[in-house]
Amino acid sequence: MENVPSNWFMEFVTPDNIQQFAIKDVLYYGHSEFQKVEMIETLAFGKCLILDGKIQSCEGDEFIYHEALVQPAMILHPNPETVFIAGGGEGATLREVLSHNTVKKVVMVDIDKEVIELCKQHLPNHHQGAFDDPRVELLHTDAKKYLEETNEKFDVVIIDLPEPIEGGPCYLLYTQKFYEMLKTKMADGATFALQSGATILGITNVYMAVNNTLRTAFPVSIPYEATVPSFGGPWGFTLNSMKRNPHELSADEVDQRISKRVNKPLHFYDGHTHQGLFYIPKYLRDMLAKETMIITEDNPVFIPGI
Amino acid sequence: MENVPSNWFMEFVTPDNIQQFAIKDVLYYGHSEFQKVEMIETLAFGKCLILDGKIQSCEGDEFIYHEALVQPAMILHPNPETVFIAGGGEGATLREVLSHNTVKKVVMVDIDKEVIELCKQHLPNHHQGAFDDPRVELLHTDAKKYLEETNEKFDVVIIDLPEPIEGGPCYLLYTQKFYEMLKTKMADGATFALQSGATILGITNVYMAVNNTLRTAFPVSIPYEATVPSFGGPWGFTLNSMKRNPHELSADEVDQRISKRVNKPLHFYDGHTHQGLFYIPKYLRDMLAKETMIITEDNPVFIPGI
Amino acid sequence: MENVPSNWFMEFVTPDNIQQFAIKDVLYYGHSEFQKVEMIETLAFGKCLILDGKIQSCEGDEFIYHEALVQPAMILHPNPETVFIAGGGEGATLREVLSHNTVKKVVMVDIDKEVIELCKQHLPNHHQGAFDDPRVELLHTDAKKYLEETNEKFDVVIIDLPEPIEGGPCYLLYTQKFYEMLKTKMADGATFALQSGATILGITNVYMAVNNTLRTAFPVSIPYEATVPSFGGPWGFTLNSMKRNPHELSADEVDQRISKRVNKPLHFYDGHTHQGLFYIPKYLRDMLAKETMIITEDNPVFIPGI
Amino acid sequence: MENVPSNWFMEFVTPDNIQQFAIKDVLYYGHSEFQKVEMIETLAFGKCLILDGKIQSCEGDEFIYHEALVQPAMILHPNPETVFIAGGGEGATLREVLSHNTVKKVVMVDIDKEVIELCKQHLPNHHQGAFDDPRVELLHTDAKKYLEETNEKFDVVIIDLPEPIEGGPCYLLYTQKFYEMLKTKMADGATFALQSGATILGITNVYMAVNNTLRTAFPVSIPYEATVPSFGGPWGFTLNSMKRNPHELSADEVDQRISKRVNKPLHFYDGHTHQGLFYIPKYLRDMLAKETMIITEDNPVFIPGI
Repeated sequence: MENVPSNWFMEFVTPDNIQQFAIKDVLYYGHSEFQKVEMIETLAFGKCLILDGKIQSCEGDEFIYHEALVQPAMILHPNPETVFIAGGGEGATLREVLSHNTVKKVVMVDIDKEVIELCKQHLPNHHQGAFDDPRVELLHTDAKKYLEETNEKFDVVIIDLPEPIEGGPCYLLYTQKFYEMLKTKMADGATFALQSGATILGITNVYMAVNNTLRTAFPVSIPYEATVPSFGGPWGFTLNSMKRNPHELSADEVDQRISKRVNKPLHFYDGHTHQGLFYIPKYLRDMLAKETMIITEDNPVFIPGI
Repeated sequence: MENVPSNWFMEFVTPDNIQQFAIKDVLYYGHSEFQKVEMIETLAFGKCLILDGKIQSCEGDEFIYHEALVQPAMILHPNPETVFIAGGGEGATLREVLSHNTVKKVVMVDIDKEVIELCKQHLPNHHQGAFDDPRVELLHTDAKKYLEETNEKFDVVIIDLPEPIEGGPCYLLYTQKFYEMLKTKMADGATFALQSGATILGITNVYMAVNNTLRTAFPVSIPYEATVPSFGGPWGFTLNSMKRNPHELSADEVDQRISKRVNKPLHFYDGHTHQGLFYIPKYLRDMLAKETMIITEDNPVFIPGI
Repeated sequence: MENVPSNWFMEFVTPDNIQQFAIKDVLYYGHSEFQKVEMIETLAFGKCLILDGKIQSCEGDEFIYHEALVQPAMILHPNPETVFIAGGGEGATLREVLSHNTVKKVVMVDIDKEVIELCKQHLPNHHQGAFDDPRVELLHTDAKKYLEETNEKFDVVIIDLPEPIEGGPCYLLYTQKFYEMLKTKMADGATFALQSGATILGITNVYMAVNNTLRTAFPVSIPYEATVPSFGGPWGFTLNSMKRNPHELSADEVDQRISKRVNKPLHFYDGHTHQGLFYIPKYLRDMLAKETMIITEDNPVFIPGI
Repeated sequence: MENVPSNWFMEFVTPDNIQQFAIKDVLYYGHSEFQKVEMIETLAFGKCLILDGKIQSCEGDEFIYHEALVQPAMILHPNPETVFIAGGGEGATLREVLSHNTVKKVVMVDIDKEVIELCKQHLPNHHQGAFDDPRVELLHTDAKKYLEETNEKFDVVIIDLPEPIEGGPCYLLYTQKFYEMLKTKMADGATFALQSGATILGITNVYMAVNNTLRTAFPVSIPYEATVPSFGGPWGFTLNSMKRNPHELSADEVDQRISKRVNKPLHFYDGHTHQGLFYIPKYLRDMLAKETMIITEDNPVFIPGI
């Protein structure tokens, strides 16, 4: 057993399910104004951002998460020029958005300035310089408040927030009221994607409630999932719009849009991936069909007992 | 911390990656002639079979694994009457096969009689009585030897073996020579599916080598994946045939075949799932395109260092 | 890593310190009226009782704990005929007491009848039939209340309770008031021993406060420690009396008393062990010299944040 | 569970017994010519040296280990002027030796120069500048070879090596032949102390064999133990001499020698501690009485299966 690594990151994926990754180093440990912040370097997945004890992303497989979150919404839009991002402190969501040469302006709002400064310093492979792009306007305020007060409308909206936890900073951005307000900030034909919770059996409550709420607000609301190994199981996303449907794009059209617009290699997403991406397994569809919860400020959703 | 469960199953998914599940009970611990055998009851996933320290399946999410393994190959065949299964000791692969009313005979060969007896006793929700079906011929011998000696040909072949480990019982069933021999036991138009290894980033070596080897043997060899939460990451499968291609089946055709033939509810697989199932992400396709290893008896493949 | 055991008991010894023991079986899991109750069989230490997630004793090394707790107080008394035990559900404290042929009556009060029934059934090597001895009067009530109401006086008192946890059943039995009351139930020349908390550096707060409180009540109050491997570190005890001092007994006297009175083999304690037992290391004495906390009902002590 | 620390050091104390300590930082990870070397900072015990996956010492409780190892042998000698140390890379054994103002020369031989350089840099609270003392001659060679070739004789010898592991650097320093040779390098009246293995039940094989071998070589060979919390259980030492016996020193004599000679505070050891230190529990004496193994080069001892 002298070959077993000595140092391990331990995460309670649920109260009954732990994942541990061998670590090479602890890069940072502290508390920001809003949350516990940790950065580690794992053997399996490289450098990772941990918020409130939960892995947000690791450089070894973050491309799956960030391409799955950003690229379908960007590609589905015929000409995305203005983009709004809520959260996404690592800068990798921003990196994916900026890879589109159609983009003229990105407003990114992440409440936690300290996390962003730490990511700039410790996670260069995540942001790859995205924060320095002149098209970016970076704000540290409450994304909900910002949107309520702005007069701008956006072609694409990406919400990249941690899961809602009791007492955490972002559960109000998972409500029906927020989604209704958000619609008024979306330009005609705009698309909107978000990570919408784990699809790991037994802890799908957030995914189900969020998707049930989204479909009250958007005529097109397509749940999908991707498996990011460092997340400890499959993860859910949703692509929303008033009218654009990802099923209408052929593999060839996707590949053509990528080759015309995207100025960096993609590793997860392309036309072939797109063709399979919007078909979640029957049991998730069955659960969603039975879901009745509509998330409101008075009836919020939280990840289970953690 | 008095609410943290006390008792945990611990599995090294890789030498750098541990998963732990809280357990209610240890149902069985022992060694068969061939392997270390354990049965546990977890809080998250119910009763599980563990061979050589690695989860084979858990009753809470085994439907994902077993439907993904069996149903596409069965449905793709227009009229599967004879089926060969190698491995599958839990009886759940058999259960899925027998759910097709076209099936007249199933030969199941699992070398480890002790494991099957233990599964019969401890895992009733897995097999659901499948071993008692009069269509089943159950043999405890080496599947390779059986196939070499039989004169029968089968409409569908399912290989449901543990991953190849050094010194383990089944690495010879992952070679080019085996697949070539297997083709001679497949009836005209037959289909053949197998679990073909983890698609977890960092430990994809088995999946890549197996799939690269399979495509030297079969004109149609389609890798796919499904995420079984208790496996600690996404898992790979391959659907092979001399001529039948799953992309040729529409969602409606799949649903019609299911409703005509399958006499029990499915939870993972249906026409909609089928439409998305055969599109693996770009990075897996890129890795496979570069793979050069052909598995032979002298050049076998094993899971990494565990 | 296929030789690493699969199933593990995990205990937070402190919030920063976990111990894990490989388990063969989970014998029992449930909640009594008073606490979470678990029984497991470990590879290293055999069958163990777990209350509220913390190991109480394991058959492989419980002899260290129970002999260290009981034998010095019994041997120090020249003729112990009546004994009072608070707690001690496993029956091993009782077993040690009954090993003295001078004993005519033992009153054992353990509030949790369910725990005792479970120990009777699952831990025969602990109690070894002690509960059936006709000298025993076993009561399921609050030990404090029983003592307050009884007119009896005892030659030896043994308190064998879990550590005080917030909301737990026994923190009131660690107060100055309780010890003052207890003195009035001790016969002339009586001795009184208790487990008085971990002496593991960093979590010695209970041990320090309990011992500081005891010495306000007893002219002779001698802290000592023994290392019980399954406890995750050294453990503290205290031997109290109005006049008898263990330093006054020579090794020979101890051995003679054992051979005259004790009708079973001892494995931890004898005259030689006795000679070294009552000398705790300098750092514990220094900490105790500086301790000022007196435990009262309004100022109770609890184990740290667990 | 958001309060559970994220990062943990994990040590297999035995194959069935894991201890984990929450870590603040990984200070160093690498391999020297001889062993795997790690330095971590734990929450519970501060900075620790790890060799081949096993904790050697942590700054929070190393005083227990190093005082227990060094001070009795130093104090038992009436006038220790020359001292030989084998191992002890952290410099804390050296620190304890140098605290005696009688000492004129210390030869310290540690084969692993890299470990010492790392300790100098990362563990200042361990060595406290000891390596800079002009009385010290530090050599990086094989301690056995050095002793065989030297003509010097020493008043005190301290052996502070890791436990013997198969293929490790130091198992030959645990043999009868080595101890016989060592005697010829000890001045008249010299004392010799060593750490002699875990006294944790179930893994006492090294302690028993080493002590059985030592007593074939030394007329006075007194096993003792101390509990170092970060070691995961009680730890064994042995004090050897041709004629000096620690039982002959009273508490007062010990305290007088300390106050005359030792120029820094002691936290574990003093006259009171000395009085209790040389009485191991009955079960260890019983096991030792039955031990028959004599360690030779052809019949070496190793820690169990790890």
